[in-house]
Amino acid sequence: MKAAVMREFKAPLEIEEVEIAKPGPREVIVQVKATGVCHSDLHVIDGGLPLAPPVILGHEPAGIVEAVGSEVTAFRKGDPVIGCLSAFCGNCEFCATGRPNLCGGEATKRAEGEPPRLAKDGVEIAQFAHLSAFAEQMLVHENALVKIREDIPLDRAALIGCGVTTGVGAALNTAKVSPGSTCVVIGCGGVGLSAIQGCRIAGASRIIAVDTEPWKLELAKSLGATDGIDGSSVDAVAEVLESTGGGADYAFECIGLTATAAQVVGMIKKGGMAIIVGVMPMTANIEIPGLAFLMSEKRLVASLMGSNSFRVDMPRYVDMYLSGQLKLDEMISDRFALTDINEAFDKMRSGKAARSVIVFD
Amino acid sequence: MKAAVMREFKAPLEIEEVEIAKPGPREVIVQVKATGVCHSDLHVIDGGLPLAPPVILGHEPAGIVEAVGSEVTAFRKGDPVIGCLSAFCGNCEFCATGRPNLCGGEATKRAEGEPPRLAKDGVEIAQFAHLSAFAEQMLVHENALVKIREDIPLDRAALIGCGVTTGVGAALNTAKVSPGSTCVVIGCGGVGLSAIQGCRIAGASRIIAVDTEPWKLELAKSLGATDGIDGSSVDAVAEVLESTGGGADYAFECIGLTATAAQVVGMIKKGGMAIIVGVMPMTANIEIPGLAFLMSEKRLVASLMGSNSFRVDMPRYVDMYLSGQLKLDEMISDRFALTDINEAFDKMRSGKAARSVIVFD
Repeated sequence: MKAAVMREFKAPLEIEEVEIAKPGPREVIVQVKATGVCHSDLHVIDGGLPLAPPVILGHEPAGIVEAVGSEVTAFRKGDPVIGCLSAFCGNCEFCATGRPNLCGGEATKRAEGEPPRLAKDGVEIAQFAHLSAFAEQMLVHENALVKIREDIPLDRAALIGCGVTTGVGAALNTAKVSPGSTCVVIGCGGVGLSAIQGCRIAGASRIIAVDTEPWKLELAKSLGATDGIDGSSVDAVAEVLESTGGGADYAFECIGLTATAAQVVGMIKKGGMAIIVGVMPMTANIEIPGLAFLMSEKRLVASLMGSNSFRVDMPRYVDMYLSGQLKLDEMISDRFALTDINEAFDKMRSGKAARSVIVFD
Repeated sequence: MKAAVMREFKAPLEIEEVEIAKPGPREVIVQVKATGVCHSDLHVIDGGLPLAPPVILGHEPAGIVEAVGSEVTAFRKGDPVIGCLSAFCGNCEFCATGRPNLCGGEATKRAEGEPPRLAKDGVEIAQFAHLSAFAEQMLVHENALVKIREDIPLDRAALIGCGVTTGVGAALNTAKVSPGSTCVVIGCGGVGLSAIQGCRIAGASRIIAVDTEPWKLELAKSLGATDGIDGSSVDAVAEVLESTGGGADYAFECIGLTATAAQVVGMIKKGGMAIIVGVMPMTANIEIPGLAFLMSEKRLVASLMGSNSFRVDMPRYVDMYLSGQLKLDEMISDRFALTDINEAFDKMRSGKAARSVIVFD
C-alpha cells in the first residue's frame, strides 16, 4: 500500500509503497478514507516530540473496515469507523475508572518479537500514535477504533478523530463548562475552533476568541465566538480582564506555547479554571505566579485528547454534526491527495489553514 | 486594651495599649482567649506580603463575644466563637455560589471616612485579615465569626480558625480526597499536619509525609501519616515515584516554596492532582514542565483557606475534635503569653515549633 513516510526530521515526507501485516486476533485493517492534518504531526517532523524516523504519521482518520482478526466481534468488513490515538487496554486502573484516555494503550501494541505492523523491505517502520493514518490502510488494535453511523461523510468524521474531540472534550469533559459562563479560547486552529464549539454547546454566554490572524477570528465567530481579540495588536490578558470585569470562568490554551499558557492563567477570575490543551515543546516550562495563583484559588488543568472516552464521545459528536449542533464543514479549509501531503504541511506552517484533510480515492 | 503592634518590618512586635472602637450595627467585640501563631503573620513581619505597618497581626483566634452591634442577631454576649479571615459579604457571586472563601470580604470593612476599628492616640492601626487577633479584644464584622459549642477548650478551637481549616479543607473541600487513595503532604507544620489529618479522615490508604525535620515526621505519623520522607537526605520526588509505582493521587504543598510546588506536580501520577496550600513570596513563580503536565493530564489547583465555608466547616471540625476524629492537642507545641509573642516567632523561625498558641488570661 501507499503511505507517506517520514525518513528524516525537518524534511518532506516520502510517498512510498510499504508493507502492512495481516491482522492478529484483536487487530483490524481499515481502508483509510480521510485523515486530518494536525500540528502534532508537524511537531514530530520538526523534532519537537520524542519520536524517531522512519515513521508513518497521521492520527486523525476515518475509514471503512477491510478485515478483522479472529477475536474481533464488534467490527466487520464495511463498517465505517473513526480511529483514535487514545487506544485503550480495557483492563488498567484508568480504563476501569472511566479515564481510558490516560491508559496509554501499551497493551494494544504488538509484543516485542512479533513481526511489525508496518515495514519496508522487511525493515520496521514505526506506527505513530497506534494509528499511522497517512497511508491507504491502517492495521490497528480494535480498541483504537469506534464504529459510527453510515450517514456522515468520512472527511468530516475524520476531524472528530483528534482535533474536534480534543477541543470539544476540553470544554465538555475536562472543564465541564457551565451554562451562562464566560470562556476564552486562545488559538483558533482546528482544536481551538472545536473548543469554541464545545463552549457554545455547553451553553456559555460569552466566548472570547484570541488569535493573531483576523480571518481565523472571523471563522471563530461563525462557529460560536461572541468576541474576537487580535493578540498581535493588543494585550489580550488586559483586554479580557477589562471586558469581563475581573476575568473569565474558563480559559483554554489551544496553541501549545508557554507564553499563552501563562496568559490563560492570567485571564481567569477568582476560582476560575485555565485549561492546557495545546502540545508544547519538550523542554518548555509554564511559569505561573505562585501567590496570585493561591490568593485567587485558580486551577490549572491539562486536557489530554479532551479527556475522552472516545467510544462514547465520538458517536455523540457525529450525532451533533448531523443535527447541526456541531459544525464541521466550515472547519475544513483544504483537501489534499496523499501525494500532495507536503503542501498541506507548508500551508500549516504559514498559518493559512484551519484544518486540512488528506482524502483518499 | 493590650495588643502586639507591628511598627516596622523585621523588628519585634511592640506590646502597647491601643484603642478599640465601639461596635457598629453589624459588628461584634470579642474577648480573645487564644490565637494561633501562623507563618503568614511571619511573612508580613518579614515584608513578604503587601501590607505596611502599623498593623496588629494575628488571624487564628477563638474567644468569647463581649458585645454586639444593633443589627446582630446571630451572636450574643458570652457565645464562644472562632474568628476567620474568610470574612464574607453574603451577597456577591462567590457567596451566592457556595464559595465564600473567595469573597474577599471588602464589604465587611468599615467604609472610608468612618472612624477606624483600631487606633493609637487617634492614629489608625491597620486591621490584619479582618481580625487582628494578637490583642485582648477584636472588633470584627459578624461575618468573620462562627459560633461553636461550649465544650471545646478555646486554645484548641483557635487552631481551627486558620491552620486546621486550611489543611483539612485542602483535603476535604479542594481535593476531595477519595477513600483508598495515596496522598503526599510536603511540609509538616500546622497546615501540613492538618492536611495529613484531612487525608486520613477522607479515608486515604497511604499518606506520605515529607519534611526535613525528623521530629516533625514522627509527629506526622502520630497524626495519620503512613510513611515519612526526610527531604534533606533523599530526592523526595524520586522516592515517591518509586514507592508508589508511578506517583500519588494527590500531593499537597504546605510550605510555600516554588521548589516544593514543582515537586508536588512531579510526584503525582497520570490524572493526579497537585494542591498548592502554602503562601509563597510575592514574586515567586511556579515552574511546571508543559508537555509532561499535558501528557499526564495533571491538575494543579490552589486551595485558599481550605476552600472553606467556615460557618459550616468549623463546627464540624469542632465535632471531629470532640469525637476524637481530629487531633488538635498533639499539634500545639507551645503556649505563650501575649507579652512573650516575639519568642513564639523566634521559635517558628528556628523550625522547632509545630503550632504555638498565644493564650490570654
